[in-house]
Amino acid sequence: MTVLEQMGKNAKEAARALAAAGSLKDKALLEMAGAIENGESEILAANARDVEAARESGMSESLLDRLKLNHDRIYGMAQGIRSVAAQEDPIGSIVGGGVRPNGLKIEQVRVPLGVIGMIYEARPNVTADAAALCLKAGNAVILRGGKEAFLSNQCIAEVMRGALQKAGLPKDGIQLVQDTSRASSMEMMQLTGYLDVLIPRGGKGLIRSVVENSRVPVIETGAGNCHVYVDDSADIDMAANIIFNAKTSRPSVCNAIETVLVHKDIAETALPAIKARLDEKHVEIRGCERTRAILGGEIVPATEEDWTAEYLDFILAVKVVDSIDEAIDHIARYSSGHSEAIVTRSYESAQKFTERVDSAAVYVNASTRFTDGGEFGLGAEIGISTQKLHARGPMGVNQLTSTKFIISGSGQIR
Amino acid sequence: MTVLEQMGKNAKEAARALAAAGSLKDKALLEMAGAIENGESEILAANARDVEAARESGMSESLLDRLKLNHDRIYGMAQGIRSVAAQEDPIGSIVGGGVRPNGLKIEQVRVPLGVIGMIYEARPNVTADAAALCLKAGNAVILRGGKEAFLSNQCIAEVMRGALQKAGLPKDGIQLVQDTSRASSMEMMQLTGYLDVLIPRGGKGLIRSVVENSRVPVIETGAGNCHVYVDDSADIDMAANIIFNAKTSRPSVCNAIETVLVHKDIAETALPAIKARLDEKHVEIRGCERTRAILGGEIVPATEEDWTAEYLDFILAVKVVDSIDEAIDHIARYSSGHSEAIVTRSYESAQKFTERVDSAAVYVNASTRFTDGGEFGLGAEIGISTQKLHARGPMGVNQLTSTKFIISGSGQIR
Repeated sequence: MTVLEQMGKNAKEAARALAAAGSLKDKALLEMAGAIENGESEILAANARDVEAARESGMSESLLDRLKLNHDRIYGMAQGIRSVAAQEDPIGSIVGGGVRPNGLKIEQVRVPLGVIGMIYEARPNVTADAAALCLKAGNAVILRGGKEAFLSNQCIAEVMRGALQKAGLPKDGIQLVQDTSRASSMEMMQLTGYLDVLIPRGGKGLIRSVVENSRVPVIETGAGNCHVYVDDSADIDMAANIIFNAKTSRPSVCNAIETVLVHKDIAETALPAIKARLDEKHVEIRGCERTRAILGGEIVPATEEDWTAEYLDFILAVKVVDSIDEAIDHIARYSSGHSEAIVTRSYESAQKFTERVDSAAVYVNASTRFTDGGEFGLGAEIGISTQKLHARGPMGVNQLTSTKFIISGSGQIR
Repeated sequence: MTVLEQMGKNAKEAARALAAAGSLKDKALLEMAGAIENGESEILAANARDVEAARESGMSESLLDRLKLNHDRIYGMAQGIRSVAAQEDPIGSIVGGGVRPNGLKIEQVRVPLGVIGMIYEARPNVTADAAALCLKAGNAVILRGGKEAFLSNQCIAEVMRGALQKAGLPKDGIQLVQDTSRASSMEMMQLTGYLDVLIPRGGKGLIRSVVENSRVPVIETGAGNCHVYVDDSADIDMAANIIFNAKTSRPSVCNAIETVLVHKDIAETALPAIKARLDEKHVEIRGCERTRAILGGEIVPATEEDWTAEYLDFILAVKVVDSIDEAIDHIARYSSGHSEAIVTRSYESAQKFTERVDSAAVYVNASTRFTDGGEFGLGAEIGISTQKLHARGPMGVNQLTSTKFIISGSGQIR
């Protein structure tokens, strides 16, 4: 039995206890939140070592931003866990049912998924969010974070395991894979006997590798090539404001935008206004020919790769389109299906865009940065699903459950 | 471009039209139901040729029963389609939402999955059920039935395609793969650019092959190693009646039982009563040692394989257990997670069994044969999911959809 198989076995055993843990789960979560706050200096010390090593190995500033913890982020983690504890327990809730004409009573009841595997990259707060959400839904979790954040993750996981045990639950409800080589994630993808689902969270490369190689069912998350379309009827100030926010407030996250599409009839006035805002943060624009004709030849020409790129950086692709239909087609072709926004004053354009754009979140007159479990009112999120099966968009506690049917009879036969 | 890729491309185009088809879908469904009834003689003729060929190639009687159509089954198909037409359109229904403190209005709206692939075996009525349900949910479907039912399937599919066209919808919303070799199903499993989900429906071998080989997300269905546990407090007549029904009313289907577990304290009286009922249909019992000690040495000894077998025939494995806990453990170990029943008069046993047995449908005092979309009130079903992701248990129209979030703002940024 390999190390991972043993972890899988331990997780399965822990999952049975967690499925029936009831309010002990909330006790453990509150314990965890306190333990994370009390462990702040310890966690920050471990994180500082991770950050230092990453900086030395040449990690970009925006990726370093993902990795770095501080007092506010640790407080945010603890508050996220508390908000998960405060949510209603999904397990055992009856989501449907009734009495059939033959007298059978059918109840559809929410149950845990079982054992959840997570493969993720540089953000150590994922460790806390994921473990809390999996626990709340009665699942055991096996976490496999990136090597850049290993010391941070290990410190957070140990704090949480201690809290589990203190609450009288098996500490193997949360386990962190110690081997951060590629081999361990490949092995997790084959762990069908132990894992009920595998959730990758990170960049495009990670997601694609998991989707292509996993025999465990996968929930695809996060890769975000998001768009803002500026309709011909848009309020230009609003458009510039939304684009500035969606691109620059935190470029390293998946709900940041990568491409702006501008209707040709508004491009001459809108593009300079948009550029003026983006210049405040020195955003590099890569434009189509028509964009360059308006903004000037110093704009970098956009290539085919720019339409698919997830820059996660202060770079933005810009294209002038002939119509809302061209914008919708462009999005259908290049988007990762995460979040798209239209800025418009037209009722018809708003209806058309929201009906026809097939992404997890479709916005009218708001920043794509709101695609987030907390912003949607789900508490902490385990990721943002960009697939259509099981869950789509921000995934909170309910998305980490399944259901079963309980049928009560009095001898009925068919 | 291969034949299947071309079918995938056609399906994607058709899916866009079907996603926005609204009430035209119901018009097409009613058209189909009528066309299937009107085409009865044609369908029966094609089916007779399939049945004849299958009989010549030595197909067992219970499998021939799955393949065979008659007036009642064709009427049942048409009525199934009409009941799907009569259901509410799931597409566009708002399944959740509200206004956030920042004024953003969030709606979670039901949308189609897109293009669904079905790989199935001998039952031609699956062609009609699957096509109707996929259409109702706004999806295009690519059907790949078994070679034994090919002429029946082709006839049914053509009738349905004609009805689609008559209703003004693209006939490629329903396509039947003409190549029934293993190669075509292997190719479907790799058709990630075109298929949003693949649903295998059939025996264990088919399901396992699809789960192991598919790169398209799979919903695992149907393999049914179902159990009845006779508790020490059971009403013996009820137990014998339920077991007789669950084993013999239609042994070839997935909700038929394969193993009976009997509490040791009731075994001496219960087993002879159960055997007496099963003898009416000449069911072969394969028993554990304690079962043989009670029922006599002529009972075939059960081996390890009998606990995992899906006989789909007039054969039943029987085991005497020491306790309800042993029964629950046996089910956890050997069940395919489909349907299990307890026969009991004890409140405590009923609670324990329904809470701890982790299968899609868990019964108290009723036959497992009720695990079925129609019996559960979902109308026709596309299959019975035995996995925990996305859908579990009988899958009707709602299980063939996804959702998206539509967010309406007035310039909000984060």
